Amino acid sequence: MTEDSIGKIRHSLAHVLALAVRKHDPEVKIAIGPSTDVGFYYDFEFSEGKGVGEENLKKLEKEMRNILKRGFTPEYKEISANAARAIFKDQPYKLELIEEIATLGKQITTYTVADFTDLCEGPHVADSKEIKPDAFTLSHVAGAYWRGSEKNTMLTRIYGVAFETKEDLETYQLQMEEAKKRDHRKLGKELDLFTFSNLVGSGLPLWTPKGTIIRKELDAYVQELRKKYNYQTVTVPHFTKKDLYEKSGHWDKFTDELFRVHTREGKEFAVKPMNCPHHTQIFDRQPHSYRDMPQRYAETTMVYRDEQSGELGGLTRVLSITQDDSHVFCRDAQVKEEFFSIWDIVDTFYKTFGFKLRVRLSFHDPEEFEKHLGTKEVWENAENALREIAQSRGADYFEAKGEAALYGPKIDFMAMDSIGREHQVATIQLDMNLPERFDLTCTNEKGDPERIVMIHCAVMGSLERFSAVLIEHFAGKFPLWLSPVQVSVLPIGDTHSEYAQKVTELLKAQNIRAELDTSAETLGKKIRNVKLNKTPYFLVIGDEEVTKDEVTLESRDNGKIGSMSVETLTEKILKEVAGKI
Amino acid sequence: MTEDSIGKIRHSLAHVLALAVRKHDPEVKIAIGPSTDVGFYYDFEFSEGKGVGEENLKKLEKEMRNILKRGFTPEYKEISANAARAIFKDQPYKLELIEEIATLGKQITTYTVADFTDLCEGPHVADSKEIKPDAFTLSHVAGAYWRGSEKNTMLTRIYGVAFETKEDLETYQLQMEEAKKRDHRKLGKELDLFTFSNLVGSGLPLWTPKGTIIRKELDAYVQELRKKYNYQTVTVPHFTKKDLYEKSGHWDKFTDELFRVHTREGKEFAVKPMNCPHHTQIFDRQPHSYRDMPQRYAETTMVYRDEQSGELGGLTRVLSITQDDSHVFCRDAQVKEEFFSIWDIVDTFYKTFGFKLRVRLSFHDPEEFEKHLGTKEVWENAENALREIAQSRGADYFEAKGEAALYGPKIDFMAMDSIGREHQVATIQLDMNLPERFDLTCTNEKGDPERIVMIHCAVMGSLERFSAVLIEHFAGKFPLWLSPVQVSVLPIGDTHSEYAQKVTELLKAQNIRAELDTSAETLGKKIRNVKLNKTPYFLVIGDEEVTKDEVTLESRDNGKIGSMSVETLTEKILKEVAGKI
Repeated sequence: MTEDSIGKIRHSLAHVLALAVRKHDPEVKIAIGPSTDVGFYYDFEFSEGKGVGEENLKKLEKEMRNILKRGFTPEYKEISANAARAIFKDQPYKLELIEEIATLGKQITTYTVADFTDLCEGPHVADSKEIKPDAFTLSHVAGAYWRGSEKNTMLTRIYGVAFETKEDLETYQLQMEEAKKRDHRKLGKELDLFTFSNLVGSGLPLWTPKGTIIRKELDAYVQELRKKYNYQTVTVPHFTKKDLYEKSGHWDKFTDELFRVHTREGKEFAVKPMNCPHHTQIFDRQPHSYRDMPQRYAETTMVYRDEQSGELGGLTRVLSITQDDSHVFCRDAQVKEEFFSIWDIVDTFYKTFGFKLRVRLSFHDPEEFEKHLGTKEVWENAENALREIAQSRGADYFEAKGEAALYGPKIDFMAMDSIGREHQVATIQLDMNLPERFDLTCTNEKGDPERIVMIHCAVMGSLERFSAVLIEHFAGKFPLWLSPVQVSVLPIGDTHSEYAQKVTELLKAQNIRAELDTSAETLGKKIRNVKLNKTPYFLVIGDEEVTKDEVTLESRDNGKIGSMSVETLTEKILKEVAGKI
Repeated sequence: MTEDSIGKIRHSLAHVLALAVRKHDPEVKIAIGPSTDVGFYYDFEFSEGKGVGEENLKKLEKEMRNILKRGFTPEYKEISANAARAIFKDQPYKLELIEEIATLGKQITTYTVADFTDLCEGPHVADSKEIKPDAFTLSHVAGAYWRGSEKNTMLTRIYGVAFETKEDLETYQLQMEEAKKRDHRKLGKELDLFTFSNLVGSGLPLWTPKGTIIRKELDAYVQELRKKYNYQTVTVPHFTKKDLYEKSGHWDKFTDELFRVHTREGKEFAVKPMNCPHHTQIFDRQPHSYRDMPQRYAETTMVYRDEQSGELGGLTRVLSITQDDSHVFCRDAQVKEEFFSIWDIVDTFYKTFGFKLRVRLSFHDPEEFEKHLGTKEVWENAENALREIAQSRGADYFEAKGEAALYGPKIDFMAMDSIGREHQVATIQLDMNLPERFDLTCTNEKGDPERIVMIHCAVMGSLERFSAVLIEHFAGKFPLWLSPVQVSVLPIGDTHSEYAQKVTELLKAQNIRAELDTSAETLGKKIRNVKLNKTPYFLVIGDEEVTKDEVTLESRDNGKIGSMSVETLTEKILKEVAGKI
């Protein structure tokens, strides 16, 4: 089954849901009902006393199956704006959409499913027989603002999941159960990695000491991989005069997402939503000879994008996005080698965590070319170059139109996690437009100025999103090198405290993150805490350990390991940390 | 001589300058003329064709000395607003000031010096004899916007320097000549440490790879010192909803300096001008037992403050301020010990660079208590505690009213640099107000909630300002551990390149910042470059070195050192780096 046909099934099911809901509440106001990656939803405003909660979903599902049993063949129509206004005269949300379509001068279309005509572009199944009644379910209910803005009415969104077969549905449901246990918002709190404050706001995570350790270890790893390829770190502020973005083109094209600031002197500034324009100014501080090329700048820093509050959730969608950004300024002839180096870094990095990578070549949308900067010719050259690189690397790739960045095509990496979900992670972008706009050159062998190109890459993409993916991938059981606490030291009683303290200090002196449990709890409770914290190693310190001057090591993943000297333990741990095991 | 009497001399000289200028241009519009740390200035708007440049300063000085020779005794008067309006009817800037004073309901006062009556609060010398005619000079002329805002007229500011004696003036002038050679703006460009872009804006430095190395080394050192005292690193965004600052009190009290942002949903956010309110939210994410106290959070991050563009210059006044911030959340009984630890960190840090420290206890201004948060009692307790700590440490301290932070008194450290100038650097602040506002507690031994206190400290203060101080302190000759390039490797000819490359790689593999000069320049030119870059060590690689498999080491500070193996060199350098020599 293709992506398209499952999409049609899901979209038709959204209409069937609306049919069932209209039977329950004939006066219901209907908003929009698209398909999603795993099913569909529909937004409703219910009549008073007719509201729907999760307790009503089984009944609605039953009604949906009745509709499918009776069967239907969706009917497509192109109609005038006035005809549409008449059909939807009691449906204010539909009327709002009709006015928008009419203003844009586009054709208004409807689909009729059974006796329900909806404002809709399709596509739908040709016949309801394509939909298996046991391969869908209504999953949950949530509030959703009309058009995502909290200035509008809060509607009721009913979600469904739908697949081609019952088996696919069940596989998905098992995966979701597992995902729920691993939810990074839940684990993030339990493991004390980050927190949110109502005073600071959603989308603005505050990272605790433990969470900050993970962030720093991850970033240090990326920088270590980059160091082999002679990257240099630079530092820019989070602010700029609007002039920079007028020149880069972001001021016009990045309208909604840009946080604008007016200074006390009435000047217009912006908070940076990306680092590339700033980095061009560092490159351009002095003339460059071909001998100095490439210049490779790296900087891990927060960028800010204005998102609708309804879209924010946990770490997956935030306002403060930490990018492990890099920009390579190089000559045309160096593009291939630089892309290969970056691709090597990405491969090594994701392999360390056991992710499988798939590659998407994200190209421009030929039907909306005006969304991009630059000429068609420049874009086609850049896209051909990327395709050639992917082919010569023998990568598992596919092409996707309309997924490019503002200034150029990109290679997006999709990582498959331990429970089979795919996440978009790293991205490498080829940019022939910013160098043009900022007139970036180097002097070539003949002494002439030569236009250069830029390659953008964030290995983790966003540190926030990547942390969320990682927490769920490992279900919170981080490998030793990433664990905020690597070894817990648990003295059984007061008489063992001194030795336990000594062991802790010895480990800490070797930069091992050891933690001494000084609480007055029983050993059983102390061990339970270690397990809750998912600490990779712990040491129980009792009479025997003190007498023999040894420690007894237990592992989160492999149970009891045995007795050894502190030196042996230190060596073992440092070796595992260095190997990123 | 006290600060006060030299201040009076300087202020009176400003009036004498105005007198001299009025002789040159009787129609001149006069603005303001205060004393400064080293002298005085006065702002003027000259009549057409009467403008004054540096070429006129000698003549003005001569006229000033004539006025002093004739002698005067400044005369003080309190007058009505109407009387003032009459006296200054042709002086628009004075009229603007008069309206402001009148609106505030304050007394209008004038000082008459010789035949020139100026709107002025004083204080002045009692008699012109107190001013030595050979102990002042007019130093330079600059443009200055009326009231510092570029929306206003650009005035001509004439600067003078003035001291008690001729000898003091000469000492100062020598110091200034030396300071000019060391100007961090000039050296920052020559050593390629940072740059500014017209598109990004002044006050927003862009740090190059070399400058970023210095930033990172400095910060790593602060964090290393803090690690001994169990500080933990946290991470917060640069944004917050206004709610956080309404609760902290900054929304009202920090009005001008706060960058406000409106989101696409019309919500009010602010860019953080400090980190403390965010850090309270991390502390407050969970209840704390007295056993967990103190909690010590450190974070080096940029904060943003809206400054008038006329005040921005180089790294000393910026919009993007990198603070090496820390907040200790502790119990009352722990304040003294924590203050001592922090003070130890500050002492060790500044000693490393050879700075001498003097301490200012910055207390509240009893006459403008409304500028502060909290009650008088809380303030007095806090200030007594600081005085006691300073005394029991035997510190070289003085007290200054009106220099406190918004939320509490502080200890400010003043560092004396290598040419005798004093810079305000580290600050430790005791805060009994934010814990009150955010209701921060720990559970004490009896199980009751206990109000805690906060201690704020930035060791470097602002990394930008501190970098400027350091560049000028060392005149760009950074110690080895801070130098962006530690060793330059200079092959004499093509036949020595391979060995030079090998040596460079061996050093780099040991994390020594070695740089190979691959240019086609002569050895003489290569050595000149090393000297311009103030690189601490360089190696000339010729036939003898290749044959013997050795390097010949030369030092920036100690000349030729001699031949040695790469292993010996590595050991020597690593030892010096570790010792921060």
